[in-house]
Amino acid sequence: MIRDTRADLYVLPELCFTGYAFRSKQEAMDLAESVSDSFSLNHIRELASEHKCGIIYGFAELSGEKVYNSCCFVSPDGGHYIYRKLHLYYQEKEWFSPGDKPLGLVEFRGCRIGMMICFDWIFPEVARSLALMGAHLICHPSNLVMRYCQTTMVTRCVENTVFAVTANRIGRETRGEYDFDFTGGSQILSVRGDILYDGSRDKEEIGIADINFRESEDKRINPKNDLWNDRRPEFYRVN
Amino acid sequence: MIRDTRADLYVLPELCFTGYAFRSKQEAMDLAESVSDSFSLNHIRELASEHKCGIIYGFAELSGEKVYNSCCFVSPDGGHYIYRKLHLYYQEKEWFSPGDKPLGLVEFRGCRIGMMICFDWIFPEVARSLALMGAHLICHPSNLVMRYCQTTMVTRCVENTVFAVTANRIGRETRGEYDFDFTGGSQILSVRGDILYDGSRDKEEIGIADINFRESEDKRINPKNDLWNDRRPEFYRVN
Repeated sequence: MIRDTRADLYVLPELCFTGYAFRSKQEAMDLAESVSDSFSLNHIRELASEHKCGIIYGFAELSGEKVYNSCCFVSPDGGHYIYRKLHLYYQEKEWFSPGDKPLGLVEFRGCRIGMMICFDWIFPEVARSLALMGAHLICHPSNLVMRYCQTTMVTRCVENTVFAVTANRIGRETRGEYDFDFTGGSQILSVRGDILYDGSRDKEEIGIADINFRESEDKRINPKNDLWNDRRPEFYRVN
Repeated sequence: MIRDTRADLYVLPELCFTGYAFRSKQEAMDLAESVSDSFSLNHIRELASEHKCGIIYGFAELSGEKVYNSCCFVSPDGGHYIYRKLHLYYQEKEWFSPGDKPLGLVEFRGCRIGMMICFDWIFPEVARSLALMGAHLICHPSNLVMRYCQTTMVTRCVENTVFAVTANRIGRETRGEYDFDFTGGSQILSVRGDILYDGSRDKEEIGIADINFRESEDKRINPKNDLWNDRRPEFYRVN
């Protein structure tokens, strides 16, 4: 029996059409796609329209002479919204330009979705900023290689009372001088950090969970603590 | 054989002389101590002097008509530095006033120490602020009852490249209408989130670890990523 995998929203990994590793910036440019003329975006649009769903996927975005490590939300009506990764990991700095657009949300069927990519997980400000803007759900296309990312995403949900989906890659990629082992373990997490879906470390899977995204609007964790009202920003340092 | 437990610095739990629960603000006031006339501070000073160590402990601090949930660092020469808990948990709001002093560090034998108390763990800005100020080590007296705190402290170390000590309480406290089960599991964590000491959930223990606090000064996690230089504060929201 094949489990029904119909969903309102699908999240795919980071750079899911090109692979993660490039020999050079030129190779990244050659494989990158401009949003105005993107074979993969057009194909994803067709899928989103046919299946009446939202789809988030990571891709190499060409814009002028720059390549960004981006992800894109596509709605069934063909609309799209792009996030450019703010924090580049390791060799990505050779291939990509750092994100240059403000963090933002996209609303889909009432759910406010924030996006971050892979290594953004280690900077608490990313999920925090998205949550303060009102995100119900953080979608997190990834090609993770460091330990503690999956654990940290539990923290990101608990501290922000948001849902999160990490779509991570499995397997190994060797290209030029680079060798990456991806940790798999995709996950869907609740606002309390419960693991609603715990993906395989080494097999391709589709994980599904039903969430009531409105739960993230209530920042109370008990009758006297509201994680938003209890904040003391006047005491926090940004730099 | 009794293991040698001599150390440069000892960290005790939150409110370690009064117990955690109070019947009323009046009871908290009656048990609280003013720093200028504190039996427990004087006693801790004697211990710190005798054993030539630093000691951090949590206590109910009386100041005028207010009571704070505070912790105090005491040095062997009798100096002290106080932190007043910024984020009060649940019923604490009936007993205590929220902290009203800026976060700060104290330096001891070259190690810059930041302090936070218990529920502060859930606000990423506390550990972040202390780390941005230059903390090598975060000391965290606690009376923890929520799950995920210990896990989150791993995140706090990883995201900030700091060491952390959580001194938590074991057992149960029943007082008036309140009933608390404390989770134990005190821990000493490295800058990479390694658990150097993993305390019992239900027994009193003294845990010791040797750390090279200078490791926290190097924010590089690989040759191309420095967690401080890679931050993009211009994109982060505080409110």
